[in-house]
Amino acid sequence: MTSETWNPLSTAPPFPAVRYASIADRIAKVLGTRNDVLLIQAEAVVALEAVATSLARPGLKVLNIVTSPYGLWFGNWLRRGGADVIELAAEPARPIDVEAVERALNAHPDMKVLALCHAESASCILNPMEDILALARARGIVTIVDAVASVGGHDLNVDELGVDIAIIGPQKSLAGPAGLSALSVSSAAWQLISREGGPTGSILSLLDQKIWLDAGRGTLPGTTAPLEFFALEAALDRLEAEGLASVIARHGRAARATHAGLIALGAEPWVKPEKGSHLVTAVELSEAADPKALLAAAAPLGMEFSIGVGPGANRLIRLNHTGLRARFDIVLGNVTAYGIGLRRLGFKADIAAAVEAIALHYGD
Amino acid sequence: MTSETWNPLSTAPPFPAVRYASIADRIAKVLGTRNDVLLIQAEAVVALEAVATSLARPGLKVLNIVTSPYGLWFGNWLRRGGADVIELAAEPARPIDVEAVERALNAHPDMKVLALCHAESASCILNPMEDILALARARGIVTIVDAVASVGGHDLNVDELGVDIAIIGPQKSLAGPAGLSALSVSSAAWQLISREGGPTGSILSLLDQKIWLDAGRGTLPGTTAPLEFFALEAALDRLEAEGLASVIARHGRAARATHAGLIALGAEPWVKPEKGSHLVTAVELSEAADPKALLAAAAPLGMEFSIGVGPGANRLIRLNHTGLRARFDIVLGNVTAYGIGLRRLGFKADIAAAVEAIALHYGD
Amino acid sequence: MTSETWNPLSTAPPFPAVRYASIADRIAKVLGTRNDVLLIQAEAVVALEAVATSLARPGLKVLNIVTSPYGLWFGNWLRRGGADVIELAAEPARPIDVEAVERALNAHPDMKVLALCHAESASCILNPMEDILALARARGIVTIVDAVASVGGHDLNVDELGVDIAIIGPQKSLAGPAGLSALSVSSAAWQLISREGGPTGSILSLLDQKIWLDAGRGTLPGTTAPLEFFALEAALDRLEAEGLASVIARHGRAARATHAGLIALGAEPWVKPEKGSHLVTAVELSEAADPKALLAAAAPLGMEFSIGVGPGANRLIRLNHTGLRARFDIVLGNVTAYGIGLRRLGFKADIAAAVEAIALHYGD
Amino acid sequence: MTSETWNPLSTAPPFPAVRYASIADRIAKVLGTRNDVLLIQAEAVVALEAVATSLARPGLKVLNIVTSPYGLWFGNWLRRGGADVIELAAEPARPIDVEAVERALNAHPDMKVLALCHAESASCILNPMEDILALARARGIVTIVDAVASVGGHDLNVDELGVDIAIIGPQKSLAGPAGLSALSVSSAAWQLISREGGPTGSILSLLDQKIWLDAGRGTLPGTTAPLEFFALEAALDRLEAEGLASVIARHGRAARATHAGLIALGAEPWVKPEKGSHLVTAVELSEAADPKALLAAAAPLGMEFSIGVGPGANRLIRLNHTGLRARFDIVLGNVTAYGIGLRRLGFKADIAAAVEAIALHYGD
Repeated sequence: MTSETWNPLSTAPPFPAVRYASIADRIAKVLGTRNDVLLIQAEAVVALEAVATSLARPGLKVLNIVTSPYGLWFGNWLRRGGADVIELAAEPARPIDVEAVERALNAHPDMKVLALCHAESASCILNPMEDILALARARGIVTIVDAVASVGGHDLNVDELGVDIAIIGPQKSLAGPAGLSALSVSSAAWQLISREGGPTGSILSLLDQKIWLDAGRGTLPGTTAPLEFFALEAALDRLEAEGLASVIARHGRAARATHAGLIALGAEPWVKPEKGSHLVTAVELSEAADPKALLAAAAPLGMEFSIGVGPGANRLIRLNHTGLRARFDIVLGNVTAYGIGLRRLGFKADIAAAVEAIALHYGD
Repeated sequence: MTSETWNPLSTAPPFPAVRYASIADRIAKVLGTRNDVLLIQAEAVVALEAVATSLARPGLKVLNIVTSPYGLWFGNWLRRGGADVIELAAEPARPIDVEAVERALNAHPDMKVLALCHAESASCILNPMEDILALARARGIVTIVDAVASVGGHDLNVDELGVDIAIIGPQKSLAGPAGLSALSVSSAAWQLISREGGPTGSILSLLDQKIWLDAGRGTLPGTTAPLEFFALEAALDRLEAEGLASVIARHGRAARATHAGLIALGAEPWVKPEKGSHLVTAVELSEAADPKALLAAAAPLGMEFSIGVGPGANRLIRLNHTGLRARFDIVLGNVTAYGIGLRRLGFKADIAAAVEAIALHYGD
Repeated sequence: MTSETWNPLSTAPPFPAVRYASIADRIAKVLGTRNDVLLIQAEAVVALEAVATSLARPGLKVLNIVTSPYGLWFGNWLRRGGADVIELAAEPARPIDVEAVERALNAHPDMKVLALCHAESASCILNPMEDILALARARGIVTIVDAVASVGGHDLNVDELGVDIAIIGPQKSLAGPAGLSALSVSSAAWQLISREGGPTGSILSLLDQKIWLDAGRGTLPGTTAPLEFFALEAALDRLEAEGLASVIARHGRAARATHAGLIALGAEPWVKPEKGSHLVTAVELSEAADPKALLAAAAPLGMEFSIGVGPGANRLIRLNHTGLRARFDIVLGNVTAYGIGLRRLGFKADIAAAVEAIALHYGD
Repeated sequence: MTSETWNPLSTAPPFPAVRYASIADRIAKVLGTRNDVLLIQAEAVVALEAVATSLARPGLKVLNIVTSPYGLWFGNWLRRGGADVIELAAEPARPIDVEAVERALNAHPDMKVLALCHAESASCILNPMEDILALARARGIVTIVDAVASVGGHDLNVDELGVDIAIIGPQKSLAGPAGLSALSVSSAAWQLISREGGPTGSILSLLDQKIWLDAGRGTLPGTTAPLEFFALEAALDRLEAEGLASVIARHGRAARATHAGLIALGAEPWVKPEKGSHLVTAVELSEAADPKALLAAAAPLGMEFSIGVGPGANRLIRLNHTGLRARFDIVLGNVTAYGIGLRRLGFKADIAAAVEAIALHYGD
């Protein structure tokens, strides 16, 4: 090859193997855990599938709390492995009810595992995770939390809460790369996973990852993607420079300001901020309006709108204020664009009041 | 060195020498010119200093139109080289008056060069470039245009307008790198530059750059900074994908929307959009307000505000909507944050009306 | 977040969805195929596991040719899905014998699928792919080729050869990113995959990927990793600038020069270049030498040596001349370092002759 | 702009202003100095021109030691500013003689400044800097050292040696970016620079840079190029991870091995390693050979050869082992390619002996 054809970024240098352990430790700090942290070289949904696949076995009884399509998939992966899955679905696009969880746990004293999602990006709701985890902990049940869309936007102290497996991805509130993910695994969870005949030799096997732990956390199994790990380090650098508490506070403010703006607009946010995701806010369109028409009407304004995913969510418009987007101008642009979209469809929207309401949240 | 210490981006591969000519041709297209395009390996102010230094000589009479501190510097550089500089200054922070230019040209029939800035980022004004260039063209005067803050935001057809030297930088509307700059040079300009005893052997010598042209536009003189050229190519890729006309239109819309929003707010934009920069908008604070206090009051909102630079500009607040910032949410955030800042200082601001006014400009 | 904590590469912009189809088309061209090309958002081993998982079903009879541990895994994945796997293993670390394949096919007239690896990076051998594919084609058998370690280093014309599924990764001869992979799928292969009850809702499901094809090849399913796709485009840019034939020729020359150098050194290359990988060359240590000691002895020289993987390969030292490493100085450094390592262990090595032999291959 | 046209690396985030001071401190550590360190936003030749321009004044007597074209330019820049330049040129492409320097200093007791280059990349020689600096120090003369091609490859302790101004660039042994440079300035040097009427308002004015120092080393004057500073930080990270002493040792070894290899080859290295650059080695072609023909003969081997620059250097071939290239395979490739080139021109070259000689230097 001649120098004329050489291009930057063409060949990433190998990621230094000595730095994987450091990355895992930094993620452990974000999660507030002393549990093992594994690094999965694919997006976070693969980590979820790997958890379900590694745990599932005939006879294992799992309470799978379903509040979005991801929850349904998680149940499918468990059943594929033979698990006895008790599925507890919330009202469409609504948080799960704690009492329903308690009833289900009481009805199945042989329940071994409980899985739930902390914050749902499909419907922008937040599940009452703390209360549910307390119920599980009291019964010695291994708990799995999908924290992909909550880490960095909500408090999540894995060890205090007693989460056995927490799964995260860097591409949301951390504004990092999307091509890898991570999870923390407690010793109780390892006991379930490390069984005779458990899946090995697969991207979906956590046992394979354990080899890395046992070998001192050097070179990861498989072929690694250096770009992803360098970008993850950069994201952790920024997170640590800003401070985890500040990042969470910034997302909380964006969520509250968005909610206040929508209320002032005369629109209907799907849930209150304390029951909703701090990364994305859902607003419910009136029945007279067509969600796709709303998106089309707002499109020239260039904001990141999308329609909710899954049952009950198809009338929800999601306003994105995740990661670097958790800031004043984006919140303002989102709510205003939503108001303009409403007007273009012939509805009323008090944009002036919305802007005033948002401004109150960015006062200091 | 061990692989543990290897880091990405540490060593950029050399920029392929065969691609400099292509870059120059792409810039020529942006400028609408068949003149030579030179690539300067330093920021655009260095290109300006190089132009002045390469042209200046004892006895050369130059009309230097001053509408900002950069203009003053340009005059200084010319005088340093012995030129006979007739300085024509506009009212502080105001565009130059065409008639004043005409009077000055009539008073000095031996004028050889005229220099002006197209759009000023210090005060956000636009000079009546077309009319001035027509006056110069009619008199056979060599014309120099500082287009750093206008290219990509305003029409600028170098050959149609008869600009002999146009200087640009990629870091503004093109959202490119800041570490290099470019200029177009007509044959009339070359005739002035290519004289016996002109400066050579210097970063400030255009004659040095001519060697590159004469050698077929391969390897540039000096040590090149590959990162800057790769980034410039990426910026040109984006520019061509979006289309120059669209980029200009996007900046024009941002300027008009900002102006309308400020008017509705009850604030006082410094000039009308057709007389102002499309990249940055200046708004004048009332005498009762302290510019630094306004910046402090708006700071929590995170927008890019700055105070005008130079005489007459110290009460101007500049709202930045350049490059990737020429979009709805930034315009909205800028104007709203300005209104909030005003209120926090105890002034009135009709934010609601401002938002409505901005929205009208993002209708299609 | 303040500007002080902002870091480059922290947030990659989303990869433009309209460019996935173009990437697939460019890969199709590299493979010489009109078949569908799928993009998998994980390393190539995941693509292999996905192929096996998507094809496997009870009763499906597959001839799985095993020439490395990857082949063993492939069989495991097929069996996990219930397939009837006939495993045909080569001599340890040796290419498969064509006649053995023919016998196996004749013995199982109901064979539906045949899988083999083109070039093995574990032992650096090349399988007689063309002959085997001809046998399969004559019997209407669906063929799967693991071309991860051969694409870009060896001729591979998928449609001429009649390969139904070819799997590649960009991180070897293409010097691209490692976090994604690709495969081509013929209509015959799709017929096997697209069956009732086939796996869906999984990283290992090709049926999931088909949704992308059927929807016009826009946004990929799942969360994409933009860094990987931008890097893949850069790798394809380079490949096309150099030309696929030149890239293959460059690897072939590196392999032949390495082989000649090793012979001249007095060492024993594992196979002849026409039967070996063009990306990595294996050399066999004499029984008196300890492979780890050889690696340690050569380590100060900084070349990329590794020990072969799998049965029969544990006395092989692999010299890496892949991608940007397929060039004179690396070939020379590899062979010389190997010779120096031998000497340090007390063996003879004619380094002078080796260098002369290598030089002959870089004559034009 | 639509997301389809968005491209990575298109817009670098601004470099955090708070990190300039840290960069300067890290460079000070590399130079072993407590003097001020300035950051120049252009390549190192511009820093040299700025030093000469900032110091020069009518009547200032400077001993300018010339060992390459850069030295000639330095004298020109000084004379342009009116300085009384005593030029002391070495034999073409040879180090300066210390006694000649002493004689010149004795002949001009009013000498105020002495300038020399530490290592020359044009002819690959090393000047006897320590002895010359001692002579200057004893006379209270302000000393200027061009260390662009020596920093990181040779010991350079600015404060121990008493260097008043040392100029460096990151693009050589540091394997960093080329678009910026740095210099250290002692208080004695500042006294000369900070005079009434000294140049200001110019890329070539160090007084302009002093504003930055006096303002607490925050935002740099002018428009900064973020890519360059991020890349410089990455280079410093690597340097500190490897250790300055190791980097210097690595370059020293490459130089000694290259020299030994050339001698064994039967070629004529221009100087001994202790009198030569550790970044680049010059070898002298016999009169019967044509340098361009040698380069053409070696070109297919892909090594970085170039012809010496300036008087006396036009028969020197320069072998590049700078920065990441200061390693075994590059040294080996360079010397071998040179030998092959010689042979192709019909000369003898004992490549075998050369390789053996190089190997001895990479023994531990």
